[in-house]
Amino acid sequence: MTSRPIKILGIPGSLRQQSYNRGLINAAQEVAPQGVEVTMYLLHDLPLYNADVEAEGDPAEVTRFKNAIAEADAILIATPQYNASVPGVLKNAIDWASRRPRTGGDSVLADKPVAIVGVTPGKSFTEPAQIDLRKILKFTKSRVMPEPQVKLGAAPDRYSENPELPDEETRQQIRAALDALVEFITVAEAKAAAAD
Amino acid sequence: MTSRPIKILGIPGSLRQQSYNRGLINAAQEVAPQGVEVTMYLLHDLPLYNADVEAEGDPAEVTRFKNAIAEADAILIATPQYNASVPGVLKNAIDWASRRPRTGGDSVLADKPVAIVGVTPGKSFTEPAQIDLRKILKFTKSRVMPEPQVKLGAAPDRYSENPELPDEETRQQIRAALDALVEFITVAEAKAAAAD
Repeated sequence: MTSRPIKILGIPGSLRQQSYNRGLINAAQEVAPQGVEVTMYLLHDLPLYNADVEAEGDPAEVTRFKNAIAEADAILIATPQYNASVPGVLKNAIDWASRRPRTGGDSVLADKPVAIVGVTPGKSFTEPAQIDLRKILKFTKSRVMPEPQVKLGAAPDRYSENPELPDEETRQQIRAALDALVEFITVAEAKAAAAD
Repeated sequence: MTSRPIKILGIPGSLRQQSYNRGLINAAQEVAPQGVEVTMYLLHDLPLYNADVEAEGDPAEVTRFKNAIAEADAILIATPQYNASVPGVLKNAIDWASRRPRTGGDSVLADKPVAIVGVTPGKSFTEPAQIDLRKILKFTKSRVMPEPQVKLGAAPDRYSENPELPDEETRQQIRAALDALVEFITVAEAKAAAAD
């Protein structure tokens, strides 16, 4: 481990200002352990994926998104569930990020450690969305952290005091996920170093 | 059956001009049986789904999309496969269309007959994408036609003569799907009439 901060890119899968899932990223920023820096990345400005556009060179916002992923030690995705799966907004962002550079080599998602969390008002606990997201991120060759799986229901209750920050219990679950993610990154780095 | 034309809304899940899947919709327009009208709807202008934007009223393009679905007797979706699932572009369009009117009632996707086709250069035949799409459209309470399942590989070979229109064999598979869809719509209408 170096002494530089561990950089985690937090991506809410919803664009709503008071999105419960954006609230999970707010929580991650608040409870991040010492030496861990959580930056929020909002997906509002990404265009729809279009290979004709890509062929003329990545739009500036796509470059910004890919760079943010490349520079992060890990990604924390907070996914809502829309129509029994991942929001189109989030999938579209992954579709852009999954593209390899024209100069060759892997995409910025390859080998990237990723933690997934999700909260919903409904009774699915975002389970179907998280299953699909794991499948998608397996295809992008990302390293998805297996445990803890943070799948939360009863969203309104968790935000009864503050619409943008969940209650203490939820924040502790996010903290536990961050602790596990730091461990997961460290193990991944040690393995990479050992393979050198 | 009335004598008015049967209206089918063809939606390619890719934005690329020479998309193989857009080519399947081109084919549907070419081989449509007598009395069947296939209109192509391109998803380029739909914004990313944002509940805050929706709360101020649907953007004009969202209204146009919902109206096009409402006015169609059925939808024909031609889906590519991106990262082992449905393209974000297509899922985003479904996320918008799945929303109920603020005045109450069902979404334009509820009870709507839908046929799914897909073609890919790879060896998946768009199977994983179509499985996810069926799951998503079950959630939106759409009536997805069970057979024939048009899952096609070897995309470049099918477009070797014309990059925007597939070969005769592929066109015949699309024609068979359209014939089945017309039958499927008719049965659905008869059931609805019998239930009146």
